[in-house]
Amino acid sequence: MFFASDNSGPVHPKVIEALARANDGYAMGYGNDPLTARAIERVRDLFEAPEAAVWFVTTGSAANALALACLSEPWDSIYCSPAAHIFEDECNAPEFYTGGAKLMTIGDQADKFTAEALAAEFARWPRSVHTPQHGPVSITNVTEKGTLYSLDEIRAIANVAHGQGLRLHLDGARFANACVALGATAAEMSWKAGVDAVSFGGTKNGLMAVEAVVVFDRDLARDFELRRKRAGHLLSKGRYLAAQMDAYLTDDLWLEMATSANRAGQRLAEGLRQDERIGFPWAPEANMIFAELPSVAHRRAREAGAVYHVMSGDPDRDPTALCRLVADWSAQDADVDRFIDLVTG
Amino acid sequence: MFFASDNSGPVHPKVIEALARANDGYAMGYGNDPLTARAIERVRDLFEAPEAAVWFVTTGSAANALALACLSEPWDSIYCSPAAHIFEDECNAPEFYTGGAKLMTIGDQADKFTAEALAAEFARWPRSVHTPQHGPVSITNVTEKGTLYSLDEIRAIANVAHGQGLRLHLDGARFANACVALGATAAEMSWKAGVDAVSFGGTKNGLMAVEAVVVFDRDLARDFELRRKRAGHLLSKGRYLAAQMDAYLTDDLWLEMATSANRAGQRLAEGLRQDERIGFPWAPEANMIFAELPSVAHRRAREAGAVYHVMSGDPDRDPTALCRLVADWSAQDADVDRFIDLVTG
Amino acid sequence: MFFASDNSGPVHPKVIEALARANDGYAMGYGNDPLTARAIERVRDLFEAPEAAVWFVTTGSAANALALACLSEPWDSIYCSPAAHIFEDECNAPEFYTGGAKLMTIGDQADKFTAEALAAEFARWPRSVHTPQHGPVSITNVTEKGTLYSLDEIRAIANVAHGQGLRLHLDGARFANACVALGATAAEMSWKAGVDAVSFGGTKNGLMAVEAVVVFDRDLARDFELRRKRAGHLLSKGRYLAAQMDAYLTDDLWLEMATSANRAGQRLAEGLRQDERIGFPWAPEANMIFAELPSVAHRRAREAGAVYHVMSGDPDRDPTALCRLVADWSAQDADVDRFIDLVTG
Amino acid sequence: MFFASDNSGPVHPKVIEALARANDGYAMGYGNDPLTARAIERVRDLFEAPEAAVWFVTTGSAANALALACLSEPWDSIYCSPAAHIFEDECNAPEFYTGGAKLMTIGDQADKFTAEALAAEFARWPRSVHTPQHGPVSITNVTEKGTLYSLDEIRAIANVAHGQGLRLHLDGARFANACVALGATAAEMSWKAGVDAVSFGGTKNGLMAVEAVVVFDRDLARDFELRRKRAGHLLSKGRYLAAQMDAYLTDDLWLEMATSANRAGQRLAEGLRQDERIGFPWAPEANMIFAELPSVAHRRAREAGAVYHVMSGDPDRDPTALCRLVADWSAQDADVDRFIDLVTG
Repeated sequence: MFFASDNSGPVHPKVIEALARANDGYAMGYGNDPLTARAIERVRDLFEAPEAAVWFVTTGSAANALALACLSEPWDSIYCSPAAHIFEDECNAPEFYTGGAKLMTIGDQADKFTAEALAAEFARWPRSVHTPQHGPVSITNVTEKGTLYSLDEIRAIANVAHGQGLRLHLDGARFANACVALGATAAEMSWKAGVDAVSFGGTKNGLMAVEAVVVFDRDLARDFELRRKRAGHLLSKGRYLAAQMDAYLTDDLWLEMATSANRAGQRLAEGLRQDERIGFPWAPEANMIFAELPSVAHRRAREAGAVYHVMSGDPDRDPTALCRLVADWSAQDADVDRFIDLVTG
Repeated sequence: MFFASDNSGPVHPKVIEALARANDGYAMGYGNDPLTARAIERVRDLFEAPEAAVWFVTTGSAANALALACLSEPWDSIYCSPAAHIFEDECNAPEFYTGGAKLMTIGDQADKFTAEALAAEFARWPRSVHTPQHGPVSITNVTEKGTLYSLDEIRAIANVAHGQGLRLHLDGARFANACVALGATAAEMSWKAGVDAVSFGGTKNGLMAVEAVVVFDRDLARDFELRRKRAGHLLSKGRYLAAQMDAYLTDDLWLEMATSANRAGQRLAEGLRQDERIGFPWAPEANMIFAELPSVAHRRAREAGAVYHVMSGDPDRDPTALCRLVADWSAQDADVDRFIDLVTG
Repeated sequence: MFFASDNSGPVHPKVIEALARANDGYAMGYGNDPLTARAIERVRDLFEAPEAAVWFVTTGSAANALALACLSEPWDSIYCSPAAHIFEDECNAPEFYTGGAKLMTIGDQADKFTAEALAAEFARWPRSVHTPQHGPVSITNVTEKGTLYSLDEIRAIANVAHGQGLRLHLDGARFANACVALGATAAEMSWKAGVDAVSFGGTKNGLMAVEAVVVFDRDLARDFELRRKRAGHLLSKGRYLAAQMDAYLTDDLWLEMATSANRAGQRLAEGLRQDERIGFPWAPEANMIFAELPSVAHRRAREAGAVYHVMSGDPDRDPTALCRLVADWSAQDADVDRFIDLVTG
Repeated sequence: MFFASDNSGPVHPKVIEALARANDGYAMGYGNDPLTARAIERVRDLFEAPEAAVWFVTTGSAANALALACLSEPWDSIYCSPAAHIFEDECNAPEFYTGGAKLMTIGDQADKFTAEALAAEFARWPRSVHTPQHGPVSITNVTEKGTLYSLDEIRAIANVAHGQGLRLHLDGARFANACVALGATAAEMSWKAGVDAVSFGGTKNGLMAVEAVVVFDRDLARDFELRRKRAGHLLSKGRYLAAQMDAYLTDDLWLEMATSANRAGQRLAEGLRQDERIGFPWAPEANMIFAELPSVAHRRAREAGAVYHVMSGDPDRDPTALCRLVADWSAQDADVDRFIDLVTG
């Protein structure tokens, strides 16, 4: 009953095998090896974007911060939701990498914002030399609260951003889970909906430590490789990142794992919904569930060994606690069911 | 009828005279001159803070950004109101000077936030290595909307900040106007109310270009002079900054000018209040008034030569426009009255 | 006998008068006033560059750092001499403003480097993603050691820089002194010799605190005003900077003051040269002299009230001390002669 | 015959096995897992430093830049040799991570500098607010040119640094190779010789991508984990870094691999030394050899498939080329001998 995070689960065995296979003899460093070239091509194929710039890094924070740095100037604002990972969970990495851009939150809702709210922000007043300048817009799908932007919602936001001459970044730490939940292809959830740059996550979905940054207009990413090197994110033994991504995109392993995680997440949500004492501040639409559990139920689950995060509320004092439950690709039905029994029993 | 800003008026003649007087022979550069030493002592006397660190810079943005940089780390959040000058009007100077700190807005109200709202922010959840860290709190008095924090309100905010081990910065671009409006001394509105660092403005109140940064605990400001030099804000001919500040604090010129500006501002507010069509989104408590003028009245004033900023609304289309009117030390009653007549007539 | 620095002398009376004259009524802030527009035009006229971008700031460090930031990327090297002000005397301002560019020194000579030495640096090896990238070249004229780059030397350096697609910046803290010493116009010593951006100093030559940044290709300076604002270097009362520059360029006051300073400097050098005990590590070509004085002579001058900097050597222990003597526009022959008598007597 | 770099060879099979072993079930993320705790303890044991702060990152540039950022302020100079990796090969990562510190090279020799040269730099003149401030000293062992600092040389440099109140950092990308070559323990080559912080490399010596930063005085590293997170270098699945380091320190694998690499390097050097046409600008003391090869010999080796870097000289035009040859842990005697035959034949 391990629902702490989808980055706490094991790596898929095929990924370990791929690493072992890549460990054969010499290969030129810093991504100048054939396996890296092949993995990049596979990402381009997946996104139906033969001209896209593609790079591999080891963390989502690095992917987001490097991508945003390519899309903004230090005097810009970056627009995001109040609960955006880039705003709340990266210890000011975006500010660091952009050289001091400002993160400006849009809307009152933690998980998402609307195209209308974004347009209202731009309409507030004309920018001048005194104000931060308008910079890129960033959304996350699956959102940090487990909900989804629909393709139409993404497209509407992209239209507002593009109307201002601004770019749209997608934090895709759970890109695969979103594609599966929406029934969308990678292209449909990115450039076809107006997204200019994607952090295409792998680590939360069964890889060891690989995220790809995909920028559809290469000119936007001219400096990316200098930024990556300057940040110490250019790994010398690039083949081991490439091997993971190559395995990820072989035989649709990325979709297989996300499907498995989403299925477990939905099973969990279904089970909890049976208990009317349990509230859901955000609709669980993929593999992450925010649930207000009765504290007594929480304690029972904890004592039985369930692992997950309490986001707010003190289960020793308050009647309920807001808990976050995330299912990874390896989550087992038996564990899900046992947890539901413990909590709703 | 010039109400565009209190930084658009002339410098007080005594300041020009002081500059001419200081222009006598040689003086060691970079603040190593007797006049700078004297001016620093006068600021310390004014603040009843003989141990305070005091430095002069030429702009409020530099004063704020340097002060905040001394109080924070690059991975911190700086807490301020949504309309804080540091948030909206300094083109990301705080982010630049702090090396990438995040500006976090508190509350829904544009001009001020409460101690309670600040405490609620700190209570939201425990910080971890992933989140921005708690950093200094910054308030502005007179606020950006022309209202005032009372001494009690400042003290309450300071208590919350100090309770977290954090520091309180006061953006005092209109410090003098606030002192006059509150009937408070410089010490009462700063360290006696819990303020740790002040940007003590002079430029908006009749000086040419001088702000003093005052930090009451010198240890907090150990690196200030290196930060100032590194930013190109250490002027070689320091005596001409000192001369201005010296004149400012001679015979209470700073209070005389602020009193004059506030009086003109209140006369303006009084006059406009007579016209019930005119709304005031924020109570005009010092020398700056935000007034919703009927567009027809606005056009009449403009045509007669009145100068001020329209903040929102299009007076050519909308029935009203939100206008900002600021009285400086040199504002004349006749101009104020003429403007009132034009607008309310 | 005050030879500490040319920024320790008084401001020219005409400049004080210009400030007083500018102090008349209201003027829009932040450079949006007619006097600023006029001063900018005068700088353009002086440089015979009607399309040049021109901005005013208050210090040479700010001028240099902002100019270099416009010409470079954070991953670039900036090439300069080992004794460049930007390398040794700005407390890492260039690194701060550029977001972390590297300063790379060229040649073994403290004051100047040659086009050949610069070309050799570029030839050392091909740049890759691992190395700092080639960035702008910066020279200082008058150099930090009181010597001069000839127009031919500047042109040769510019050619090497341009051959690499790089830009040439000129730190002109003593631009006027160099023009006078070389018999060159402002245009001849800048764009006609291949210079792309100039820090055109005023403060060391009789102004209170104004330097102009002049960038001949406006496109290079697109972001300058945002950078200046973000650094807190956009003064609200711009007219008082403009008034100084306007006076500076009226009736060739800038040349008059530099001529006076250079004449005093050369008179000093002439006098000291008569004493064969005195060595000159660098040829004094303008208003700044580096002289190895016998310690006994130094002590005699000091006791008689002469003020100047000892750069190395301990005059209480060593037989000689390396001293720096700078004449400003207001230096008097009598003082120069008295100093010579004291030292050589 | 692959001598391009020791980061181009394969990972040791035991490391792959360790990764597979670690891939079992769930583990808390971000280093909060038992394997990370164990690996940290092993590093502390190795360094005989039970109180040391230890963190894992994936690249040497990140390790160096994060370590130096903990030891310096943005207005400091960092002292290093002219060929230091941090100076020439990290695309300004140190400037980025330190917020703009200046890298100051010591001495004329590319590979090393002496304690005397360092002391001379400090003696040049007293620092003031204008200059960069004195900051940490950084050396590399094995040096970038394949030579070694002796323990005595390190100690002498440490003494000079400590005498100024400054810290000594050791870039140990090839720490293991240096220990083996010097016959020194990890403690002897670090804190026992006065080193304050070490980048303890693993990647060039048979790991996939792990370096440990070891800081002996924990107080110096208080902010390390925030800096690492802010840089996107905190991996979520920490166990896979820990597994590598754990394997590295099990049964002295780290020494076994370095011994193998050094032996191959020395065999190569011995063989080349037989040919008197071949020059060695730096004495090959570990596993990296800089050799001036006759161009004809170089071409023969290349045609036969040998892979290595030409550092300067054009083998198609010049009679000799300066080549860099690095042996990794997996280098085979047969390949070394074949290369020697080709080149010296």
